[in-house]
Amino acid sequence: MTTEPHSHKGPDIAHVTLHNGLEIVVIPDHRTPVVTHMVWYRNGSADDPVGKSGIAHFLEHLMFKGTDKHPQGEFSDVVTALGGQENAFTSYDYTAYFQRVSREHLKTMMEFEADRMTGLVLSDDVVNPERDVVIEERRMRTDTDPSAQLGESLASTLFTHHPYGKPIIGFMHEIEGLNREDALAYYRRFYTPENAILVVAGDVTETEVVRLAEDTYGRIPARGQKPERQRPREPDARAARRVVLADPKVEQPSVQLAWVVPSYKTAEKGEAEALEVLVQILSAHGTGRLHRKLVMDQKIAVAAGAWYQSTAVDRSRLMLYALPHPDGTLEALEEAIENVLTDIVQHGVEDHELRRAKTRLIADTVYAQDSQSSLARMYGSALATGSSLKDVTDWPDAIDAVTAEDVKQVTKKWLNRRHVVSGYLLKDEAA
Amino acid sequence: MTTEPHSHKGPDIAHVTLHNGLEIVVIPDHRTPVVTHMVWYRNGSADDPVGKSGIAHFLEHLMFKGTDKHPQGEFSDVVTALGGQENAFTSYDYTAYFQRVSREHLKTMMEFEADRMTGLVLSDDVVNPERDVVIEERRMRTDTDPSAQLGESLASTLFTHHPYGKPIIGFMHEIEGLNREDALAYYRRFYTPENAILVVAGDVTETEVVRLAEDTYGRIPARGQKPERQRPREPDARAARRVVLADPKVEQPSVQLAWVVPSYKTAEKGEAEALEVLVQILSAHGTGRLHRKLVMDQKIAVAAGAWYQSTAVDRSRLMLYALPHPDGTLEALEEAIENVLTDIVQHGVEDHELRRAKTRLIADTVYAQDSQSSLARMYGSALATGSSLKDVTDWPDAIDAVTAEDVKQVTKKWLNRRHVVSGYLLKDEAA
Repeated sequence: MTTEPHSHKGPDIAHVTLHNGLEIVVIPDHRTPVVTHMVWYRNGSADDPVGKSGIAHFLEHLMFKGTDKHPQGEFSDVVTALGGQENAFTSYDYTAYFQRVSREHLKTMMEFEADRMTGLVLSDDVVNPERDVVIEERRMRTDTDPSAQLGESLASTLFTHHPYGKPIIGFMHEIEGLNREDALAYYRRFYTPENAILVVAGDVTETEVVRLAEDTYGRIPARGQKPERQRPREPDARAARRVVLADPKVEQPSVQLAWVVPSYKTAEKGEAEALEVLVQILSAHGTGRLHRKLVMDQKIAVAAGAWYQSTAVDRSRLMLYALPHPDGTLEALEEAIENVLTDIVQHGVEDHELRRAKTRLIADTVYAQDSQSSLARMYGSALATGSSLKDVTDWPDAIDAVTAEDVKQVTKKWLNRRHVVSGYLLKDEAA
Repeated sequence: MTTEPHSHKGPDIAHVTLHNGLEIVVIPDHRTPVVTHMVWYRNGSADDPVGKSGIAHFLEHLMFKGTDKHPQGEFSDVVTALGGQENAFTSYDYTAYFQRVSREHLKTMMEFEADRMTGLVLSDDVVNPERDVVIEERRMRTDTDPSAQLGESLASTLFTHHPYGKPIIGFMHEIEGLNREDALAYYRRFYTPENAILVVAGDVTETEVVRLAEDTYGRIPARGQKPERQRPREPDARAARRVVLADPKVEQPSVQLAWVVPSYKTAEKGEAEALEVLVQILSAHGTGRLHRKLVMDQKIAVAAGAWYQSTAVDRSRLMLYALPHPDGTLEALEEAIENVLTDIVQHGVEDHELRRAKTRLIADTVYAQDSQSSLARMYGSALATGSSLKDVTDWPDAIDAVTAEDVKQVTKKWLNRRHVVSGYLLKDEAA
């Protein structure tokens, strides 16, 4: 076991690695006698083997199917009986399992979670019906929703080579082909102590958490080496692309503009922070440039915003969107959004906008820390995507250091209209 | 050795499989005392491992680097000294090596080609400079050519999951990473007798070719099993997409429309033939509908045509293109091309067009057989993509059976404007 000394602002966080490679993060929060227990695995849908898209997400479902020690349903029943909550989620870069219980039940959660890290038992009798559940999930969420279909097509146009272009849930025809052997092979590859991060936030001490973890997770032998992510790199974009989906079910048309941009992990120093500030300047509620220019001044949109997936292992995505006024076209709206960016590239941003954006970003993060699970999630997702605890704690200072020139430069460098991928969602009037 | 009896029209072709799995096709052509000797491997760029794009093509280069028995350059020198010709090419689905020599030198070609099927010697001293050659090839052909760049972007938008969306030559950043170990691993996986097809056309008999092949290729031990192609299936398109590239170097703008369509290998009965006839009706020189409507009637294009990659292992692509009149826009031209298709979907094609298209297609193929190398190539590419000799010989009858209704139906089914990928090449006036 090694302990890494750690300077920070905010809670007094401990970061420990067990002898078997399991990383542990302890975030004290003594306001109420509860704990949030999360295990993060450093594998997500972007690590799905070629032709097996959806396997990370499918395995997340299957992790609730029981072990030799605990039959299917027992873990969830215990969480419920203890008055706790549980959840799990799969993203591009990680899969995580979560329980929130009274502090005295932490060890029970650890026992169950450690048990299913290596003890999962899968038979065709549980795998096959669960695959039907996922198929139905995809049918409901994506295949009957024009907006989700456009989203998939847009993502695959944005990322033509890197697996961020594949849907997290998987392609239907590949989900249909997933079986017990695929699930077990994937499980054995990625569900190891070396690949996991235990995050415990709550009314606990480092000493206590580490002792409990050693008694539970510590009994799992090291696998010997960390599984490697094998991902091709997306080539630089050479053309502008537009994806158009028209469907009779669409009630509100929309336009999106997307680009491949650096994540915190891949960015040059300060670039991700500048993109974060830019997005805030563009989309802050009520005062963002997109809202002011498109909704209030030009009256060509009824809403507009921006979104940046900054926490990611590889180059990630930034998206702007707007919903047109009933009289307007998406082409005009796309042009207007581009002009908002051109204005920033040509004239920069105002000092007051910059100040407000930075204050807001930092405040939002401080407020988020008020929620124990947000706090755990913030640290877990950062570590699972290759950032360090120091990156997280230094982040407010890094945001504070962003200059108006930085914002101008990242806009110019990354949000080039020659490389945009735009998405048009239209009501199909003909059908 | 097994011999498959084979009924056909055209030349009296033999199809034999050696004990080690090597397939042999012998196409007699006694007009001149020459032979065309080709070896086809059932692996192309679409079989490149993820992250190693370009390896099939790179290995094609490296196959000229010599063996223990024959140092680098000797094979090519011998072909030249014998007054012969040689070539090699890599496509999505296959890699092939070709020599044309006097009939008495066939055995020499077989000895060399069989020798390099398993005897290739690669050192860093030859691999690394050759990689620079390929890098330069890519730089010259693609990275400085806006039309080629648009083509790559269009292909990756059309095929977002299947490797037909990756460039045959590879992505620059992946070519740069290819090394000796990658090349040897790939070579050992795919260069085996079970994965190869020997095609000999020329002034030879089956008996003679088989005897020579047994003395040369027959000495290579079987590997034990045929390498498998592992390719994800492209999901059905859900949206229309447009790819736009503007560059100051562009002198002639153009618009392309592309769709994923069945190949002969994947098509339902008659569909590929109907697409072939459609393309002929659209693009026959001087009389095709695209030329007549866009160039002659509407005068909005200076040229127009169509292209269908029908010989492929998986679903493939069909493209229409037009070059705008200097006064016209690409948007208008795209709309006009779509209207040519809509007209066919609504009103079908004329009997005389259908007849002329079928006659022309069949005649073109008959004329192509006049060239020994075209003949060898026709059979080799068919077998290498999973068609049979019978498919090739029955092809004229299958084309003849296409009806006007078939043409209308495939146009409606496959060339849907809701799923088109269009490519716009524009002169960048701003830069």
